[in-house]
Amino acid sequence: METLAKRSKEASNVLQHVNSEEKSVVLLKMIKELDKKRPEIFEANKLDKENADKLVKAGTLSTSLYKRLDLVSGDKFSTMLQGISDIEKLEDPTGKITYANKLDEGLELYRVTSPVGVLLVIFEARPEVVVNISALAIKSGNAVILKGGKESINTLNALTNAIRTALVDTAIPQNAIQLVETREKIKELLDLDKYIDLVIPRGSNNLVRFVQENTRIPVLGHADGLCTVYVDKDADVEKAKRIVLDSKVNYPAACNSAETLLVHREILSSHLLPIIKTLLEANVKLHLDQEILFYLSSSSSLSIDNNPLIQLCENKDFDTEFLDLEIAVKVVDDLNSAIQHINLHGSKHTDSIVTNNKEAAKRFMQGVDSAGVYWNASTRFADGFRYGFGAEVGVSTNKTHARGPVGLEGLVIYKYKLFGTGHIVSEFGEGEGMKQYLHQKIDNFDQIL
Amino acid sequence: METLAKRSKEASNVLQHVNSEEKSVVLLKMIKELDKKRPEIFEANKLDKENADKLVKAGTLSTSLYKRLDLVSGDKFSTMLQGISDIEKLEDPTGKITYANKLDEGLELYRVTSPVGVLLVIFEARPEVVVNISALAIKSGNAVILKGGKESINTLNALTNAIRTALVDTAIPQNAIQLVETREKIKELLDLDKYIDLVIPRGSNNLVRFVQENTRIPVLGHADGLCTVYVDKDADVEKAKRIVLDSKVNYPAACNSAETLLVHREILSSHLLPIIKTLLEANVKLHLDQEILFYLSSSSSLSIDNNPLIQLCENKDFDTEFLDLEIAVKVVDDLNSAIQHINLHGSKHTDSIVTNNKEAAKRFMQGVDSAGVYWNASTRFADGFRYGFGAEVGVSTNKTHARGPVGLEGLVIYKYKLFGTGHIVSEFGEGEGMKQYLHQKIDNFDQIL
Repeated sequence: METLAKRSKEASNVLQHVNSEEKSVVLLKMIKELDKKRPEIFEANKLDKENADKLVKAGTLSTSLYKRLDLVSGDKFSTMLQGISDIEKLEDPTGKITYANKLDEGLELYRVTSPVGVLLVIFEARPEVVVNISALAIKSGNAVILKGGKESINTLNALTNAIRTALVDTAIPQNAIQLVETREKIKELLDLDKYIDLVIPRGSNNLVRFVQENTRIPVLGHADGLCTVYVDKDADVEKAKRIVLDSKVNYPAACNSAETLLVHREILSSHLLPIIKTLLEANVKLHLDQEILFYLSSSSSLSIDNNPLIQLCENKDFDTEFLDLEIAVKVVDDLNSAIQHINLHGSKHTDSIVTNNKEAAKRFMQGVDSAGVYWNASTRFADGFRYGFGAEVGVSTNKTHARGPVGLEGLVIYKYKLFGTGHIVSEFGEGEGMKQYLHQKIDNFDQIL
Repeated sequence: METLAKRSKEASNVLQHVNSEEKSVVLLKMIKELDKKRPEIFEANKLDKENADKLVKAGTLSTSLYKRLDLVSGDKFSTMLQGISDIEKLEDPTGKITYANKLDEGLELYRVTSPVGVLLVIFEARPEVVVNISALAIKSGNAVILKGGKESINTLNALTNAIRTALVDTAIPQNAIQLVETREKIKELLDLDKYIDLVIPRGSNNLVRFVQENTRIPVLGHADGLCTVYVDKDADVEKAKRIVLDSKVNYPAACNSAETLLVHREILSSHLLPIIKTLLEANVKLHLDQEILFYLSSSSSLSIDNNPLIQLCENKDFDTEFLDLEIAVKVVDDLNSAIQHINLHGSKHTDSIVTNNKEAAKRFMQGVDSAGVYWNASTRFADGFRYGFGAEVGVSTNKTHARGPVGLEGLVIYKYKLFGTGHIVSEFGEGEGMKQYLHQKIDNFDQIL
C-alpha cells in the first residue's frame, strides 16, 4: 500500500503543472473512452448483479443495495457521462488569486489556490461514484485513491480501466487514478499521512466513524445528519406545515431530512395540531413528548388512542437519525431553548426556523452552530447542486476547511507565491536606513506566473 | 476537564451573537485592566523568575528559556499592550459574505464567515502569548482554553485574572478565556473533540508532534521548518549570496530559516564558491556533499583542510532542522531534481529559487508543494506580519483549512444562511409545473441579517 500511495503522490506532483485546458482534454477523453467501453462495463455490471442476486436470495444483501449496484437500467450510464461533461464545464478551482499584497518595491505576495494533493475516497455501493470522483479529482488537480464496495468490484475495475486508458498520452499520469480492491487495506492507507492529504468517506455512519477514529489525515464528511425544524410562536402556520412536511417526507433517507421538530409552547393548538395532522396523513410516525401527548389527549379534534403512528418519545429519540418516516417532537419554552436544544442534540448539519419575526430569525441563524441555518425553508435544500456548485464532493459537518455541502472548492488549498528581486529580511526594520513594509493591496495581477 | 471544556463551548455559543463593536469594547478594556494590574503582574513575574533562576543554577533550565519568561525588562509589557491595540484595529474576520446565490424568487443563499468555536492553545515559555492569543480569540469570536509553560504559571495566572476581570459586565462571558495549569490535563483535553474545535500548539517540534499524534481534533501548526534555497544555473550571483545568507543567518532559530542549500551542477565555481565563502565568513557550519568537497579540494581559491566549519554531509543532514548556524549543501543535476529533493525532504514550509530565468521560476513555484514558494527572495519573509496580516496565529504546514503564516482568517470558518419565504424542495424538478433553480449571483446583500 505504501508503494501505491507513493505513486499517487508522484502523480500529484506532476498534476501541479497541468493547466485547465489539459484537464479538459482528459475529461472529454474520459467520456469517449467510457462510452466506447460501455459493452465491457455492462458485462462486468451484469456479473456483479448476478453475484449480488445470490446474496439477496441468501438474505445477506439488501435489495436496496442491490438496486444501487445497477449501472445498466434507464439512463444511469448516460447520466454518469453527463456528470463528467458538467464537471468539465465548471470553473477550474485552482490558480485563483485570493490575496495580493505589495510588500516592497519589486516584492509582491500572491495567495493562489492549488490542489490539496492526494485524496483517499472510500465509498459503498454505487459504482458510478468512481467516475464522478475521478472527474472531480482531475478538475481540481488532485490524485485519488479509490476504494469502493466489494459487491461492485467487477464494475469498478471496468470503469477504472476505461478511465486509466483515457489518461494514456495526456498530461496527467495514469497513477492519478488508482483503485484499491480489498477492504483490509483501508486501515493501512489511513496510516499513510505522509502521502495522503485528505480522506473522504462517502457512505454509512459506521464507515465515516471508522475512518474518523483511525486516521491522523484530515477527514471531510459527516457521520450524522440530525436536522431540526423549529416552529416559532410567530410562524405562519401554512409555511410551517409545508416546511415540516417537505423536510421530513421529501426523501427521508437523506442526511438533510429533519429528524426533530421543536415547537414553541404558545402555539400548540394553532400550529402544532395542524402540523401533526399533516404528518399523520403522510404516514409519519411521531415520537411526542409528554406535554404534547397530554395536550392531544385533552384536545377533542384528534383521537390519539390506539394510533400506531403516535408514541411517547424517549430521551434518545432526540439523538436519533431515523432516516425513515419518523420524527421526534418536543415543546420548547422559547427561541433560546430551541437554539440550545439544537446545539446540544443536532449534528451541526442543517437547521431551520419557521417564523415571521425577523429578530427571531436573526438570533436563530447566529446562535445555531450548524453548517446550514435556514429561515422559512426546508432543510432539504442542503445540497451542492441546489446551492449552485454544479458538483458535490460531499457534505461536511467539520468546523475547519470546508463546511456544509462541498463543491470543488473543498478539494483545493492555497500556496503563497512571493516574487522578489533579491529581497532579504535584514534590510527591513526600525532605525536609520532600514526599509519599511509597504503592505499595499495589489489590484492588477501582472507579476503572477 | 470536561466541565471546563463544556463551559468554553457555552461561552462560544454566546460569542456567536457578539458584534464587532462589543469586541472592541472588550479589547480596549483588556488593555486598561492589564495596565492597572501591572504591579501585581510584575510581582508574579518576579516570583516566576526567582523560581526559574534556581532551576538555571541547578542546571535544569536553559538561560534562553529563562530570558523568555521575563515580562518586566525593556518595553516588553507595553509592546504586549500595543499588540492588543493592533488586533483591535484589524478588520473583524467574521460576518463576511464569501458566496451569495439567488436560488429562486425569495430564496437567497449566503455563505458568511463565522468563528470556529472553541480553541485549545498550548504554548511554552513566553507568558505574553496568553494575552496575544486571548486578543486574537476575542477578535475572531472564539472561546479559548490556554495551557502555558509551568515555569511562568504565576505570571500566566496574573495575566489571565486581569483579562477575565476585563470581561466582567461586557457582552463576552468570562469563560471565553480559561487557563489550564497542569500538564497532565493536556491529554484529557485532546480527547474532548465534542467541545473543542481546533488545537493550536505553539512551541517545540516535540510538543507539536505529541499533539498531532494524540487527538482527533484538527491541529493548526507545524512540527518542522525545513526550508530550502535552490540556486539555479541562471541565478544572479550577488542575489544568490544575499538571499542564502539572509535565509540562514538572519535568525537561525526561526522555523523559516534555510536548512538546506541546493546548487545546480553547472555553477559550482561561478556561484557556489562565493556563496560558501560568504557563509564561512558568517561562521556558518557547512555539511557539504562529496562532489562539492571534491570540487573544493581541487580548487585553489579556498583551503578546506582543517577547517572546523566544513564537513562531509550525511544523508540525515537533509532531513535535519539545525535551527543554528549550520546548513546542508548539495549539488543537483537540474531544476527537476531540486523540486523532487524539496518535495521529498522539505517540510512544506517555505522554499526559494534564485534565478533570472522566468520559466524556471514558474516551474519551481508550481512544482514545489510548500506553503510558500519564493522567487529571488529570502525564506525569512514567511511571517504573518511581513505578509501584511497584522497578527499571526501561527504557521501551518497543513494541506487543509489554513496554510503558511496564519492570520485571523485561520480562526474562522463559515456557515450557509438560507433565507426563504416558505420554500420546499418538492416544488423543484423536471416536468410540468415544476420550478427550476435560478442560480443567479447576488451582488447586493440586502436580505442578509
